[in-house]
Amino acid sequence: MYNLIIIGAGPAGMTAAIYAARRKINFLILSLDIGGQMNWSSEVDNYPGLPNVTGIQIVTKFNEHLKNYNIKVKTEEVKDIIKKGKIFAVKTKKSVYETKTIIIASGKKPKKLNVPGEDILLGRGLSYCATCDAPLYKDKIVAVIGAGNSGLDAALHLSKYAKKIYLMDIQPKISGETYLKDRVSAETKISFIGNAKIKSVIGKNFVEAIKYEIKGEEKILPVQGIFVETGLIAKVDFANIVKKNKWGEIMIFRSTKTNEENMTNIPGIFAAGDVTDIPANQIVASAGDCCKAVLAVLYYLNKFKEK
Amino acid sequence: MYNLIIIGAGPAGMTAAIYAARRKINFLILSLDIGGQMNWSSEVDNYPGLPNVTGIQIVTKFNEHLKNYNIKVKTEEVKDIIKKGKIFAVKTKKSVYETKTIIIASGKKPKKLNVPGEDILLGRGLSYCATCDAPLYKDKIVAVIGAGNSGLDAALHLSKYAKKIYLMDIQPKISGETYLKDRVSAETKISFIGNAKIKSVIGKNFVEAIKYEIKGEEKILPVQGIFVETGLIAKVDFANIVKKNKWGEIMIFRSTKTNEENMTNIPGIFAAGDVTDIPANQIVASAGDCCKAVLAVLYYLNKFKEK
Repeated sequence: MYNLIIIGAGPAGMTAAIYAARRKINFLILSLDIGGQMNWSSEVDNYPGLPNVTGIQIVTKFNEHLKNYNIKVKTEEVKDIIKKGKIFAVKTKKSVYETKTIIIASGKKPKKLNVPGEDILLGRGLSYCATCDAPLYKDKIVAVIGAGNSGLDAALHLSKYAKKIYLMDIQPKISGETYLKDRVSAETKISFIGNAKIKSVIGKNFVEAIKYEIKGEEKILPVQGIFVETGLIAKVDFANIVKKNKWGEIMIFRSTKTNEENMTNIPGIFAAGDVTDIPANQIVASAGDCCKAVLAVLYYLNKFKEK
Repeated sequence: MYNLIIIGAGPAGMTAAIYAARRKINFLILSLDIGGQMNWSSEVDNYPGLPNVTGIQIVTKFNEHLKNYNIKVKTEEVKDIIKKGKIFAVKTKKSVYETKTIIIASGKKPKKLNVPGEDILLGRGLSYCATCDAPLYKDKIVAVIGAGNSGLDAALHLSKYAKKIYLMDIQPKISGETYLKDRVSAETKISFIGNAKIKSVIGKNFVEAIKYEIKGEEKILPVQGIFVETGLIAKVDFANIVKKNKWGEIMIFRSTKTNEENMTNIPGIFAAGDVTDIPANQIVASAGDCCKAVLAVLYYLNKFKEK
């Protein structure tokens, strides 16, 4: 029986593990990868105190911190969580682990384009994160795929750096919130290409162009960067037990009475980071919230016997 | 007119400044110090990615990050915030700044003893920061007032330098976490005096003794140093405008509808870190929440014209 199982080892889960180890909680951390979405960032310059690092470098730094505390991530995929009275059974492909509390920090995954070239050129001009990578595209020509809120936001962010942004969508018109649409319309660097069905990403060592179909005709648009902004989805296949919003993100609550932050609707299950309905999706925010989740776990465990 | 004024430059305020600079918000950061409570820590090992640093080292790392973005902290003390229609006037001793939004990240400060002699002998043997000042008390006799976690931590830290430490509290027993209590009990240099009500700090140019009352009897204990560790209170003297809980901490709300996190009860004013009712009081949690506050500011500013 564990006191805590942490699901996920991105910035949130890794922070939870550091705090759990320091507080000497009997815990387990389960994740298929180490570092989560940080691994996709070519450059990270918004984690305070670690300026100008690559995604891989920040993962390494976090991982060194885990090693100092002898924390080992168990590489098992969680398939289900079952409540058994006051405790939970966490089922993986290999085994079943019982625990008093859970922190879900499984993050998000990008919706992919699912076209040829995408996987090969990931990190070589193709990115799922405009916020992370925009500064690398100073004076370059880029395409943003997806003209919903995140695509508009990405295009606007890129307009501070790139010299030209093609905003592409399979829909004929830009969607998203008015204020974002207005700002995109006012930005002369951004051109919208509607009815564009992406066919493939072209490039040898680095992105060179994007091939798309418009009204039955195939076209090739030369670009140096492609930002896929068709959205991210929360990794919650295993978490049927907790309440989610309409986007599938775990809904977060807090209780100033019990000092518990980052609660889900199920007592004893907490969540933090991109898997939740907190819209930040930033490394430091995920880390910070998972620190809060561990402190909430401690408050919960302290009262566990009373329940 | 600024779009954002950040009040405070601890981990929260510094994170806010980095995010604001990256998002190219027209902002100002006001604070008398840089680094906040991090400056008082002898050792920090729970900020993920920066294992085993001193408080001063982590402040330096954060500050280097600010310098990369040419962020300059304006060293002015905020005295008041006044709402003027949709905007706010932030008053300092020197000037008045107008802004559309504010992030309050002013942190916490030590509680005072409020006894005669305290103010006069501050910095002359009386200190609120054992971490900062302990090395000055080599082979001296000191008193630590307050036997909770921070008092125990201070006493243990002082035991590396002072020859004798009197740990005093108005309560009959030591409180705080077990592992700290165990370490304090094992340290022969530390003696606990319970039921001690501090009456005054005695000294001409420098601390000479502390006067306290125990079971109705007044006693004088000769000491060369006094460390006040009776807890922390939110720095909110200037923030009458926002709602606080019974401990004076700013109450935080969120709106999943408008995507705003770390809201106060006043639209356009946000808060993060130890000044709020979020109980974490951890560097990474303060930093993370201030990141969320800046993103909330962006959502708010984007809709500002519509209001």
